[in-house]
Amino acid sequence: MNKVLSGMRPTGRLHLGHYFGALKNWVELQNKFNNQCYYMIADWHALTTEYDNVDRINENTLEMLADWISIGIDPKKSIIFKQSEVPLHSELFLILTMITPLNWLYRCPTYKEQIKEIKNKNLKNFGFLGYPILMSADILLYRANIVPVGKDQLAHLEFTREIVRRFNSFYGKMFDEPIGQITKYAKIPGIDGRKMSKSYNNSILLGEDIDVLNYKVKNMFTDPLKIRKTDKGHFSNCVVFAFLKAFDENCENLQKNCENGTISCMQCKKQLMEIISEFIKPLNKKRIYLLKNKSYLNEILKEGCQKAAIIATETIKDVRNAIKL
Amino acid sequence: MNKVLSGMRPTGRLHLGHYFGALKNWVELQNKFNNQCYYMIADWHALTTEYDNVDRINENTLEMLADWISIGIDPKKSIIFKQSEVPLHSELFLILTMITPLNWLYRCPTYKEQIKEIKNKNLKNFGFLGYPILMSADILLYRANIVPVGKDQLAHLEFTREIVRRFNSFYGKMFDEPIGQITKYAKIPGIDGRKMSKSYNNSILLGEDIDVLNYKVKNMFTDPLKIRKTDKGHFSNCVVFAFLKAFDENCENLQKNCENGTISCMQCKKQLMEIISEFIKPLNKKRIYLLKNKSYLNEILKEGCQKAAIIATETIKDVRNAIKL
Repeated sequence: MNKVLSGMRPTGRLHLGHYFGALKNWVELQNKFNNQCYYMIADWHALTTEYDNVDRINENTLEMLADWISIGIDPKKSIIFKQSEVPLHSELFLILTMITPLNWLYRCPTYKEQIKEIKNKNLKNFGFLGYPILMSADILLYRANIVPVGKDQLAHLEFTREIVRRFNSFYGKMFDEPIGQITKYAKIPGIDGRKMSKSYNNSILLGEDIDVLNYKVKNMFTDPLKIRKTDKGHFSNCVVFAFLKAFDENCENLQKNCENGTISCMQCKKQLMEIISEFIKPLNKKRIYLLKNKSYLNEILKEGCQKAAIIATETIKDVRNAIKL
Repeated sequence: MNKVLSGMRPTGRLHLGHYFGALKNWVELQNKFNNQCYYMIADWHALTTEYDNVDRINENTLEMLADWISIGIDPKKSIIFKQSEVPLHSELFLILTMITPLNWLYRCPTYKEQIKEIKNKNLKNFGFLGYPILMSADILLYRANIVPVGKDQLAHLEFTREIVRRFNSFYGKMFDEPIGQITKYAKIPGIDGRKMSKSYNNSILLGEDIDVLNYKVKNMFTDPLKIRKTDKGHFSNCVVFAFLKAFDENCENLQKNCENGTISCMQCKKQLMEIISEFIKPLNKKRIYLLKNKSYLNEILKEGCQKAAIIATETIKDVRNAIKL
């Protein structure tokens, strides 16, 4: 039986990058594998970087959940839960730490990259190094075999597959190697052309205020060589075009008009503004409604955690038998 | 209120080194701090080195428990429990990993020593490096403030005190710094004069068979310069004397007779044999009885775990509030 697990860290507001990079795929998976998708709010993972700044994790959790539901993650079809509310994640993590060679962790490309890139934070902690082990525990606790990931996380998934082989070799065949499923949707840039990221202040939030959205679309980078409407555009350098393509793969007409110099960047932006606001307005409405009904959100988490705990308990029972404690 | 926590890894049979180095002290503490001593069978800790050899951990657990009870650890006075049966240890471990700098772990003297000394085993695993974090979680989960330790473990305790300071600085005052209490009893060597250790095959087990005991005492190293009874002995080089002193601090007479050459090594060994067998015979009897009544032993663990879990649950509740998840 196919089982899907994926998660997000509640470290801030979600944006369109999260939608195209993950959530759109999650909704499809939930419709394909009804009742077998585990979507996790990874609050313990959030501690790996936010250990000294925990004040907003809980608030972010509810905001993220509101975004998920607004976007179409359906608590009747998917198991939505908070990691720390299923504490068995920590037990499997502890057990996996015992069999994980240190050099497997040090050679993780994401570890090396983040230690190098993130300068404003001390990440040389044990927990941050152990991130891929916790991720493996998350996956294996539900015996998930399909893990939707971004390309940059493929190394983590390979790590999990290695852990599975090692666990099985020590304690007998217990887990199957999960398979990574890379999202098929176009990656969208931030409004300035760099990677869309909260820390670059270049993102468009899910549930963005429409005035702010307008301002952001107006300020999107376009092809610097196309100044007048009649200039021929090079759409591969154009952020607006990247967004248009993400929302509508069949936008060849626009592409042609841009290349031929028969449409201006302002016209493109207007069109994009309409598309995004049409997408975001109902989200906005639902989001506000949900955040006013926090007891409903908490109820969703409670039910999801109960369902998740049943499977987690079964797995831990098997693991305990395997390691004979 | 004073609370004591200590533990042992169920990696093999206990010997007289464990008695003088720890258990004798544990019995005294239990009489001093009635119902406030937590004695833990550290089976998860056993995995740090025995991850590839788990077959005997469970059996060792019951044998160790039988030794503890035989020696005088009283389940009516102490809380005796198995670490893995109070899974909240893993949750506190996970949380503490997030705030533990890697270099604190690498600079632990026991880590450096064991990586250097233990050649027949690959210990370069994440869990082995994280050992002091798990030990800190064990202590803090019960808010123990007194930790009986051997001298070699003082660095681990200092580590725990550092973790406490760091936790309190991030999340508000939650834990007190525990204090290490070094056992006051004489350290005894192995029968060959080296450190008593299972792996050196030079130990005298608690519950040793009397014939084997006889053989081992006969083969104990004595002062190599004292060959005949009339040779003057140098008791500081004598293993037999170290044992006699451990069992009876007031053995000056013997010391004098040895120095004066009025007693032979064989006479000393005979006397020691009597003392040890008098000590071990009732242990042996009780041990065999207990191991025939495994349901009684399991009942002790079950009750102990229930008591431990109550305190652990309270602490984790406070920790969760502190880190606001």
